[in-house]
Amino acid sequence: MSVFITFEGPEGSGKSTVIKAVQKHFEQDTEVMVTREPGGIHVSEKIRDIILDEDSNIDGITEALLFAASRRVHLREKILPALESGQMVLCDRYIDSSLAYQGSARNLGFEIVMEINKIAVENHMPDLTLYLKLEPEIGLSRKKANDVEHNRLDNEELNFHKYVVLGYNKLSELYPERIKTIDASQPLEAVIEDAIEQIRIYINSRGDL
Amino acid sequence: MSVFITFEGPEGSGKSTVIKAVQKHFEQDTEVMVTREPGGIHVSEKIRDIILDEDSNIDGITEALLFAASRRVHLREKILPALESGQMVLCDRYIDSSLAYQGSARNLGFEIVMEINKIAVENHMPDLTLYLKLEPEIGLSRKKANDVEHNRLDNEELNFHKYVVLGYNKLSELYPERIKTIDASQPLEAVIEDAIEQIRIYINSRGDL
Repeated sequence: MSVFITFEGPEGSGKSTVIKAVQKHFEQDTEVMVTREPGGIHVSEKIRDIILDEDSNIDGITEALLFAASRRVHLREKILPALESGQMVLCDRYIDSSLAYQGSARNLGFEIVMEINKIAVENHMPDLTLYLKLEPEIGLSRKKANDVEHNRLDNEELNFHKYVVLGYNKLSELYPERIKTIDASQPLEAVIEDAIEQIRIYINSRGDL
Repeated sequence: MSVFITFEGPEGSGKSTVIKAVQKHFEQDTEVMVTREPGGIHVSEKIRDIILDEDSNIDGITEALLFAASRRVHLREKILPALESGQMVLCDRYIDSSLAYQGSARNLGFEIVMEINKIAVENHMPDLTLYLKLEPEIGLSRKKANDVEHNRLDNEELNFHKYVVLGYNKLSELYPERIKTIDASQPLEAVIEDAIEQIRIYINSRGDL
């Protein structure tokens, strides 16, 4: 069952837990691959090291070019082969993360980030994107609850996360066919149920599966 | 004298020797910086390492994204500060090399390579580009004469270099205002004289210098 599904949302929205549950559910019927960039791909990891190196002093556009290169390598080396062998691919973050984080929160604008990423992914957009929507305050406090070293809500950080969520909201309005929004403030079981339901709806809508 | 000049041409066209002579000539009047990517910039060097790593197995578009990121870092860290402090910048290869090598010889097409590079350099195109034009056979045989390990003209290599030169020729037709062609089959002294003359013409055409 060759389907390319991406999961998006701010920090604390529960993506990784939901992905694991979705994987467990669909594994009964089909082969499922869970991945996220850099995905163990050596080149992508080396690119990430450059981006994350605090001494790099690179600007937003350079970062977007590097992220796009890393995304393309991960796509070609890992996602496309899995899809070609008929697997369901569950990918934790993809093009919409760049749009929400760099385009919106870092203020580069959707247009240039989309332009760079469209070159990188060509026509390989996700079949379905599940957006785990959550108020930034809730996401951040969930995250901080698990993080003893950073347990204070930082205003700057909150502001950044607000723009991330605003970016995701705008994307879900721009691409309603591809991006399905799930209320991630619900209890986890309900979020998982909604995610599985959205995937079922998508699969049923495709005659070939 | 803030001027941004790039030097382009196939291998064996004598770029580095010409650049040295041009530097020596203009140093009498102004501060001159000679550079080429990665230019000692740590981040650019790390990006180059990834591109040159034969185990990387990256495709042309990934390579173009990485080259563009490296170009942007070199531009921001080295070229722009020098121009802002009023220096003449002589840069060995820039955007046209990507167009000729990747766009033409590696067959990605000018359009996508230009799109990627325009994002990377924004409005920072060279004021003047000197294209040292040389038949690919001559360039390659000049190069091989200095290279004991590779002294046989390889057909595949020759074909690649033909497309590089075709790419440069096309670029010089597309951007006749910016790109000035110099016959690099002449004796070196004449090539240097032509290069200095083209720079003088450009400088005189600009009222502010």
